[in-house]
Amino acid sequence: MTDDDEHRLARVTELAKRRGFFFAANEPYGGVAGFWTYGPVGAALKRNVEQRWRERFAHEEGHMEIQSPTIIPEPVFEASGHLDDFTDWVIECPTCETSYRADHLVEGTGEVEDAEGLSASALESLIDELDISCRSCGDSLQGISVGEFNLMFSTAIGPGKGEPGYLRPETAQGTIVDFPRLLEYARGDLPFGAVQIGPAYRNEISPRRAIIRVREMTQAELELFYDPEEDEPPLGAVAAVELELYPVEAQEGDGEHRRLTVAEAVDGGIIDNPWIAYYLGVATTWFHEIGVDPAKLRFRQHLPGERAHYAADCWDAEAYLDDDWIELAGFAYRTNYDLNKHHEYSDGSYTVFKPYDEPVTVERATVDPDMAMLGPEYGAAAADIASALEALVETNPNAFETGDAVTIEAAGETHEIALETTGYTVETVTESGEHIMPHVTEPAFGIDRLVYTLLEHNFHEDVVDGEPRAYLELPPTVSPNVAGVFPLVDADGLPERARALADRLASAGLPITYDERGAIGRRYRRQDEIGTPFCLTVDHRTLEDDTVTLRDRDSTKQIRVEMVEVPEVLRSLRSGEMSFEAVAANTEAVDREGNS
Amino acid sequence: MTDDDEHRLARVTELAKRRGFFFAANEPYGGVAGFWTYGPVGAALKRNVEQRWRERFAHEEGHMEIQSPTIIPEPVFEASGHLDDFTDWVIECPTCETSYRADHLVEGTGEVEDAEGLSASALESLIDELDISCRSCGDSLQGISVGEFNLMFSTAIGPGKGEPGYLRPETAQGTIVDFPRLLEYARGDLPFGAVQIGPAYRNEISPRRAIIRVREMTQAELELFYDPEEDEPPLGAVAAVELELYPVEAQEGDGEHRRLTVAEAVDGGIIDNPWIAYYLGVATTWFHEIGVDPAKLRFRQHLPGERAHYAADCWDAEAYLDDDWIELAGFAYRTNYDLNKHHEYSDGSYTVFKPYDEPVTVERATVDPDMAMLGPEYGAAAADIASALEALVETNPNAFETGDAVTIEAAGETHEIALETTGYTVETVTESGEHIMPHVTEPAFGIDRLVYTLLEHNFHEDVVDGEPRAYLELPPTVSPNVAGVFPLVDADGLPERARALADRLASAGLPITYDERGAIGRRYRRQDEIGTPFCLTVDHRTLEDDTVTLRDRDSTKQIRVEMVEVPEVLRSLRSGEMSFEAVAANTEAVDREGNS
Repeated sequence: MTDDDEHRLARVTELAKRRGFFFAANEPYGGVAGFWTYGPVGAALKRNVEQRWRERFAHEEGHMEIQSPTIIPEPVFEASGHLDDFTDWVIECPTCETSYRADHLVEGTGEVEDAEGLSASALESLIDELDISCRSCGDSLQGISVGEFNLMFSTAIGPGKGEPGYLRPETAQGTIVDFPRLLEYARGDLPFGAVQIGPAYRNEISPRRAIIRVREMTQAELELFYDPEEDEPPLGAVAAVELELYPVEAQEGDGEHRRLTVAEAVDGGIIDNPWIAYYLGVATTWFHEIGVDPAKLRFRQHLPGERAHYAADCWDAEAYLDDDWIELAGFAYRTNYDLNKHHEYSDGSYTVFKPYDEPVTVERATVDPDMAMLGPEYGAAAADIASALEALVETNPNAFETGDAVTIEAAGETHEIALETTGYTVETVTESGEHIMPHVTEPAFGIDRLVYTLLEHNFHEDVVDGEPRAYLELPPTVSPNVAGVFPLVDADGLPERARALADRLASAGLPITYDERGAIGRRYRRQDEIGTPFCLTVDHRTLEDDTVTLRDRDSTKQIRVEMVEVPEVLRSLRSGEMSFEAVAANTEAVDREGNS
Repeated sequence: MTDDDEHRLARVTELAKRRGFFFAANEPYGGVAGFWTYGPVGAALKRNVEQRWRERFAHEEGHMEIQSPTIIPEPVFEASGHLDDFTDWVIECPTCETSYRADHLVEGTGEVEDAEGLSASALESLIDELDISCRSCGDSLQGISVGEFNLMFSTAIGPGKGEPGYLRPETAQGTIVDFPRLLEYARGDLPFGAVQIGPAYRNEISPRRAIIRVREMTQAELELFYDPEEDEPPLGAVAAVELELYPVEAQEGDGEHRRLTVAEAVDGGIIDNPWIAYYLGVATTWFHEIGVDPAKLRFRQHLPGERAHYAADCWDAEAYLDDDWIELAGFAYRTNYDLNKHHEYSDGSYTVFKPYDEPVTVERATVDPDMAMLGPEYGAAAADIASALEALVETNPNAFETGDAVTIEAAGETHEIALETTGYTVETVTESGEHIMPHVTEPAFGIDRLVYTLLEHNFHEDVVDGEPRAYLELPPTVSPNVAGVFPLVDADGLPERARALADRLASAGLPITYDERGAIGRRYRRQDEIGTPFCLTVDHRTLEDDTVTLRDRDSTKQIRVEMVEVPEVLRSLRSGEMSFEAVAANTEAVDREGNS
């Protein structure tokens, strides 16, 4: 990383506020930490990122997209474990009542690199040892106890005291809880995927770093439901993609990244879950395409103590931002954890019937205890004995095959039960399939952090015609606008021609912006700062030969393009089918801006 | 309305659940009333409706689109009046604790048509008079008091007891509170508009009618900020659009709708606010285009007692649904109510500096009371006297022009103050403009109800080839898919050809679905039920002449189209540039389905 990376957060946030990417919500009221509003260009950039995600992770994968509510009733989170486990350690200053996330407080001393996985007592010891004080009033926090704080926003549904509900901390649970219905829409077949793009909430103790750690965010999450015994991802499609990996063994060992192809990572056992490997390959290519700097992207495996309560393995995509590696997306192998919980806690069935290729004939041993015999003999223990027999025949049917009595433990005693009393029989049954519980692998992307990453990774400063400028090198496929359309001057009928061009492009579905105010140079700078890749200027020569100048943001080069060709040229630049250089190779170059 | 309209809600809801438009969220847990999940085709339909709205009300109008948080801190709603006024009347059965919305309970008797505007005591009297009982346990509700229930979901932000916050009941307040920042992005100029499409919440006492009355919804709202003295809407563009109006005078008089053009409604004084008139014109055309039945759409003016606390006038777009007129959108003239409140309650400035065409020279009278004189003479009353002088010079400067003393009332007494002590002077100042507070007119659309309306208004049943079928006549511009792509049979290489066609159409950005399972007739029915307007079938003739059949949902007619022309034909059908009939006129007709 270079000096250029320092203070980028502050510079990017200033530009974001001034140009309309994002700003603190409710500013006139002083705001509340962790809530941000996307301005016009920020909202457009965000929508474009979401749409590119949808195209890649839903449409191209052939998955369904659904939309479930953001308020979810308590029983769902009781089952999913979020009510117990979706917590951070909090410490409150007894003097000024400021609250802190205890692990961040400890990390803030610089003495401990990663305190996220530590227990309350470990954190309390460190706070005592390091003699940490309240950042707000300066009083010592020694001896203050660290408590648990659930990060879900709670509310009450309906009148009176209402039913308890929570704002979802992830879209995933809304998708997973409705699995029985989604399976119908998938016509009962595995594997299938369901995505959601929408709000999620975390009642952070200390939100920070602009839109990086917020209390209300947008998540794009894919739940892939599959049979772990049979279903395999199409690894061939991403086998050669190179991944920058930081597995557990490297974090605990030499601290070096491993640069491996997807195929190498799978074959070498670095990535255990093949679906995770597949999605890391897909995500790498996608991140690069939308403008994440490849040199500032890695995938870090969670350390065992760091994993969410539902995850058997998890890799985070991390971007280098604000002098730190920050999570952009998580790729979790959730196993059948959530489905199993909902199967147990709710009335729904979270299994899939998998027919065998051929019906299978099996012998099945069953018991049918004779209660008319057991009751009089064992009284209150009779029911327990019957249950014990039923359990035994499932785990060890052979016990019924030797001798004319079976020995069981029930109601705290050992009993000998005559074989004829157990009702033991062996039937031959034909089974056409079995019920299995699918496993889930989940790529989950934080859209706000991704939007921030695109701004920081693409923020550049250079000097053009002797003047400093700032520009955002956003790819045309995500930039808020694909082009600015200008008349060179506000006279001679140029505005009318320029506006007609702008209208024509807008009708063709191209996101453009029209501007006729101020010097042309300032209009270019404004577009540079919001990452508009191209500008079209109608000038006096347009009136003669029906051409316009097309200016490239990054090189500031200009070429002339026939007016009639502009929509198709812009369309192919937007989609990435053609580069500016390719367009320029076929057209006349003109002087740099201001001199055309 | 015909018999056909009865029980449509139940039939549409059944279809919606079975085919994946929407279903009750958290079903395996028994669900909680008022929360619904959009399945794959419902989410697609909803996104298409939102995108058409965005195109019409943001892009075509040249407005900005922003995205603000759904959680808003309490002070904003204190100012906006929602904390006091966003309430319904609730009554709770003392026996079984079931709560009811008191006005709905009264309306439910059939004795009172509209109880929405009534006071608590009026509702209590009616409940007594009509001897209304609890619908759940049957006990009488006579003598039970009616209370106020705030419909905002509340939560706490941050650790400890947190700061109070609410889930927004409309997107509007998030837009309006950030007006100072938005004005910058509009470069300080009026009029400008800002839209939001996103979640809003109402903690309804009794949610009902599927996705019509829900607790979590999606709103698409436009706030148009303008100078009421100067800015006018482009009424000419919609002057001839015919509106089905139900103004206050008709509701209180003959009960008949008025069918008038926008121009007639404005000229006749039926619609007072010209911006409302403009938006009713725009909305009418837009509603028709996306598939709302023109015969089941009207605009009803709010009765004075019914208007929200911020509205000076309001018209609702209403659709005839489930044997009732239901609000789809509201068009409110909010005046400067909200801006004024935020100006007063917050530190922000909610005014706009409007420069005069020419600077204006005015004489301004001011006072500068001599406290060194007033203090010793009047003691504690001196400050009050100074304030009274400052107030007087603003309201009546002439008082300072006659005699050498002025008479004022201050601190409960009358005082004569010598002119020289007041520091009265008249200055000539040049003013370049003035600060005005913009007014707001707001079209606000409920997207969920609109989605439901499209399903109910376009639900048809007919008989094809002797078999009954149900189909949704959704316009191609909003239908979840534009086409289904099928191989006629799963053999002879037809699936490969069909899948290649499907991939090519998907790459061209067309939403299609591929299906090779089951009889071709059943595949057509499935697409009919989800409103897919066209189906493409690859059959044996395709292998010979590279044509496919194109089937029209509504007429079930089929024609043959050259494979190479399919993308362009579908694109023009999707955008509405061409109808099926127009395409058919140029191509060979074939037999009805199943016989090609």
